[in-house]
Amino acid sequence: MIKQPVNFENLSQQVIATLNADIDALLNHASLPNPLQEACRYAMTGQGKRVRPLLVACGYHTVEQSSAQIDFELQSEALSDLMINDDCRRAMLAVEFLHTYSLIHDDLPCMDDDDLRRGRPTCHIKFDEATAMLAGDVLQTLAFEVLTANIEGFAPIADEQAAKLLTVFAPRARRMVSGQMLDLNAENKQITQAELEAIHRDKTGALIEAAVLMGGVCAKASSEQLPSLTQFAQNIGLAFQVQDDILDVTASTDTLGKPAGSDEGLNKSTYVRLMGVDTATDYAKSLFVEGKQAIEYSFGPQSALTALADWLWQRQK
Amino acid sequence: MIKQPVNFENLSQQVIATLNADIDALLNHASLPNPLQEACRYAMTGQGKRVRPLLVACGYHTVEQSSAQIDFELQSEALSDLMINDDCRRAMLAVEFLHTYSLIHDDLPCMDDDDLRRGRPTCHIKFDEATAMLAGDVLQTLAFEVLTANIEGFAPIADEQAAKLLTVFAPRARRMVSGQMLDLNAENKQITQAELEAIHRDKTGALIEAAVLMGGVCAKASSEQLPSLTQFAQNIGLAFQVQDDILDVTASTDTLGKPAGSDEGLNKSTYVRLMGVDTATDYAKSLFVEGKQAIEYSFGPQSALTALADWLWQRQK
Repeated sequence: MIKQPVNFENLSQQVIATLNADIDALLNHASLPNPLQEACRYAMTGQGKRVRPLLVACGYHTVEQSSAQIDFELQSEALSDLMINDDCRRAMLAVEFLHTYSLIHDDLPCMDDDDLRRGRPTCHIKFDEATAMLAGDVLQTLAFEVLTANIEGFAPIADEQAAKLLTVFAPRARRMVSGQMLDLNAENKQITQAELEAIHRDKTGALIEAAVLMGGVCAKASSEQLPSLTQFAQNIGLAFQVQDDILDVTASTDTLGKPAGSDEGLNKSTYVRLMGVDTATDYAKSLFVEGKQAIEYSFGPQSALTALADWLWQRQK
Repeated sequence: MIKQPVNFENLSQQVIATLNADIDALLNHASLPNPLQEACRYAMTGQGKRVRPLLVACGYHTVEQSSAQIDFELQSEALSDLMINDDCRRAMLAVEFLHTYSLIHDDLPCMDDDDLRRGRPTCHIKFDEATAMLAGDVLQTLAFEVLTANIEGFAPIADEQAAKLLTVFAPRARRMVSGQMLDLNAENKQITQAELEAIHRDKTGALIEAAVLMGGVCAKASSEQLPSLTQFAQNIGLAFQVQDDILDVTASTDTLGKPAGSDEGLNKSTYVRLMGVDTATDYAKSLFVEGKQAIEYSFGPQSALTALADWLWQRQK
């Protein structure tokens, strides 16, 4: 089987269209009272990059393609078409709901006190603090509920798959909160690169790891394949954070959809502070390269995950 | 088989001792950074009544006893002894962690703004708002994580049981948040008894329902037994809330461990406002009686759940 390059733009458009429709279906399923329902819908839409659901879909696609015996004639088309199962759609929802809850709570006055997110007023500015807190709370609940819920348009999930996804997801959802705490502890302090990495391994890395692994689990990845997925996710998670720190000083508020330069305002430790923009850029690049190597080693040179890594490397926001 | 009365005091002491040790084990497993770990430990201890874990244990005990063939000689002893399996211990933790997260968030300034809880300063007073919010967030995560986590001293849970527990638990955890929203919407408004009941069915009733049903699931309750458990839980959940409203006006702050008369201060609709203390007391009693009847119908006159209902009816806080 000769692999064709993945058409990433095509793949990602399909993933995001599917995700958006599924977000709608899950919120309809939840039928929350207003203004809670409106607040959840508001927070779950907007101009999010949907990186985590894309990681799920590409993790799934990468594992699935590596085991599929695809007819030569169909191969090129298949590689750019969305091929995800309903379990994978559940996992995509789980990571995006969890991520969005963390953003809403992170933006609250008692945390980062941000007014702008994804190009629009933050949830507590658009609604109020109580509604925003409850929206975050219930989005976390929905992130877990979607793993087993009976939702219209979704095939039921097997108990074994649901239990596996929960086992991958929950401890990393916990680590995300640990990372938030470590991040708060580090404010107004000089910390080392090792300490900074420990924060980000939990704060952003854990959920990125969950996303890639859950994609793999949905495609029934073997126990030999999971370590490569983990290695990839850990590298990409860290690279993503280094990039965020770089973009915070090099991009405009308009491009970012959130206030540029906000790290400095909060006196936060960042990679840019520790090593400067140029070294940080080299570091991010080397992390991307290593992450891709882990995937190429197990799944060959052309896969959805390496295409996603290339796309992330190019991002401007 | 002749049933002996359940020694409820004995049973509840064992349940609470087990729960307290298990809370410790789960928080050790989580190994959160401080002050998050301390805040979680602080919130999970104190003088809580542990009603929800008791509902899990008694739900388990009731179903288990109804199918057990117990030796006559051992019977009386067995009925007052703690007989729960490790899945049941997980479910007890899940409901108590979820309940505690909801209390922490409910006490925050943007919600009820309470300073006193379980006889001590609330979490955000003892620590700070950011830590309290994160503690609530991570306690919710742990409530789900415990359903599958590999914790020292716990037998692994079967995938089928974990998936079933998640299916029972998650939608009711969501309804709890819906109930909070409905409760906020009703502040400073005249509402009817039907509207008040709709609030409490979600705000407190859903988790009580989850507790009893999860106990039943852990004891492999049959599909014929589940409706009786649900009926019991719905009656007891409502009765519990009516009692809370009564105690808010009849008990002292010292006894309650939280400010007495706080409902009036917040201008909240309560059963006492709608029907007066005497009628509310009669109403609570009739709910208890009906709840017990549902259990007696399926499980006979002597069971842990009916003993728990009697104990709840007598409570002074």
